[in-house]
Amino acid sequence: MSLDSTARKPQDRLAALLAEDLDRVNTLIRERMASRHAPRIPEVTAHLVEAGGKRLRPMLVLAAARLCGYTGAHHLRLAATVEFIHTATLLHDDVVDESRQRRGRPTANLLWDNKSSVLVGDYLFARAFQLMVETGSLEVLDILSNAAATIAEGEVLQLQAARNLATTEETYLQVVRGKTAALFSAATEAGGVIADAPEDVRRALFAYGDALGIAFQIADDLLDFRGDATATGKNVGDDFRERKLTLPIIKAVARADAEERAFWTRVIETGDQRDGDLDHALELMDRHGTLAATRDEAMAWAARAREALGAVPPHEFRDILGEISDYVVARLS
Amino acid sequence: MSLDSTARKPQDRLAALLAEDLDRVNTLIRERMASRHAPRIPEVTAHLVEAGGKRLRPMLVLAAARLCGYTGAHHLRLAATVEFIHTATLLHDDVVDESRQRRGRPTANLLWDNKSSVLVGDYLFARAFQLMVETGSLEVLDILSNAAATIAEGEVLQLQAARNLATTEETYLQVVRGKTAALFSAATEAGGVIADAPEDVRRALFAYGDALGIAFQIADDLLDFRGDATATGKNVGDDFRERKLTLPIIKAVARADAEERAFWTRVIETGDQRDGDLDHALELMDRHGTLAATRDEAMAWAARAREALGAVPPHEFRDILGEISDYVVARLS
Repeated sequence: MSLDSTARKPQDRLAALLAEDLDRVNTLIRERMASRHAPRIPEVTAHLVEAGGKRLRPMLVLAAARLCGYTGAHHLRLAATVEFIHTATLLHDDVVDESRQRRGRPTANLLWDNKSSVLVGDYLFARAFQLMVETGSLEVLDILSNAAATIAEGEVLQLQAARNLATTEETYLQVVRGKTAALFSAATEAGGVIADAPEDVRRALFAYGDALGIAFQIADDLLDFRGDATATGKNVGDDFRERKLTLPIIKAVARADAEERAFWTRVIETGDQRDGDLDHALELMDRHGTLAATRDEAMAWAARAREALGAVPPHEFRDILGEISDYVVARLS
Repeated sequence: MSLDSTARKPQDRLAALLAEDLDRVNTLIRERMASRHAPRIPEVTAHLVEAGGKRLRPMLVLAAARLCGYTGAHHLRLAATVEFIHTATLLHDDVVDESRQRRGRPTANLLWDNKSSVLVGDYLFARAFQLMVETGSLEVLDILSNAAATIAEGEVLQLQAARNLATTEETYLQVVRGKTAALFSAATEAGGVIADAPEDVRRALFAYGDALGIAFQIADDLLDFRGDATATGKNVGDDFRERKLTLPIIKAVARADAEERAFWTRVIETGDQRDGDLDHALELMDRHGTLAATRDEAMAWAARAREALGAVPPHEFRDILGEISDYVVARLS
């Protein structure tokens, strides 16, 4: 990829503008993932934290705080906090999903074992709360402990809904809010809170993060049926093969006739998948227009994210946050 | 067991004196383990929380707060907090240890699956932090987020030390502090802090919980080689069969000659255990006096717990806390 095309992505421009803050966040992350007694902890953490994550969530904290005029240092602690919470949930997710690859590398549960992934995840959760306590802000602690509960609740809900054709769009939205949007919205809101932003700005920052996270996840789920592996790091149809009920399938099931329903029951609930089933699924989704309808929903959430920024003070970072919400769905057109 | 012999146990007398508080804690626990969206969460939690746990950790919070003259309601939130953290670590431990039984019942990972145990544990951690935020005390949040980090660090250290004959008594003590004593000492210290007790009383309450937890765990590890299954819920030699390096073995390995060392290497590191090996291990520990030395250490920690109470104001609960530290090691004589 040429430097030029990299520079065009809004998140990369944001990273460049926040480079100094991000350096300090990375230093803090490395300091706090250390353990005096248990060297396995930084080993496992580094495998994930240093593996070219895009630091999107920390950047949301930093940008939100900065555009509200914050000049202190607590936003660095909050940025490290959300990255630790994110890393902890990735470690636990990979155990739950029995994943073998993440970001193109073998997962920690494969390199070490499930035990290390569970316990190092717990350690990072605890470290995240220690960092928050250091900010001295009970409001921030409130926001992020609520987010942590919503994340775990969303993950359990996803587990219960797995392979269940009765899953509704409402349940899907709750899962997406939990597993993706809750940490986005907590990041942007907490950034505003630490900067002591007025109530309407905090609400707007929350609404932006929430809508951005939902748009992001819906787009991800749609790209699983359309996208190229380079963009998502996944192969077309991975979710289908894992029998995940994402929005395009939920919409197709809702519009299915008896014969189509039998097909979905066989491939998703029973899990008896044969050659040509993915093509047939794509054909059914196309026939009912559910891929297009899913794209429309992602774009509506992205628009909602941009709209929310209307209540946020004008700032270079506000403009880039708006561009990030466009970028998330631009891949879909 | 007759009512009389029950009534003699100091922890049962404490429970009777704290009955009203404990009722309110149980109500709070049931309220907060609920989930609007994911019914599996209260199912899994109830399986453990309602399974006849002795609520020792919540009682330590309540007693510490009360004996410092506390009259508010935050101690109830803290008591529920430590029970949630304890339950979360049990859920994750059972995944890590691949356990099939706890408190005489099948474990949650067996009844549901590892995924539910990991995610419901995460949910309870988050709920614990929400409860702490409600107390409005950053000091309490500091104490318990530090404890949560120490617990996870101790568990990872235990994982690294597993089946490793080079494990020292120092490492064993760090593991025990993490997996058991950290939550005991956080419970008693936080009880004092919420009651706004003076610094020396807080330190004494911390020291009591720390020493009690260490005595408790050393006694547990010793009883694994001596005790009856009724007292501990475990069979004699369970730890030996799982190749755990507890204090009696660590001491025996340190005193082993070449032939004995070969035996320990075979049964613990290689894991090639044969009929009669447990008897031979007991004989070696007896020959070197390591069971007696381990008992002496447990008793020294119990004495240290009692001593620490000297700096705590006179109170009926202080006396019972002293009796609890005696009780923990009385089983060993």
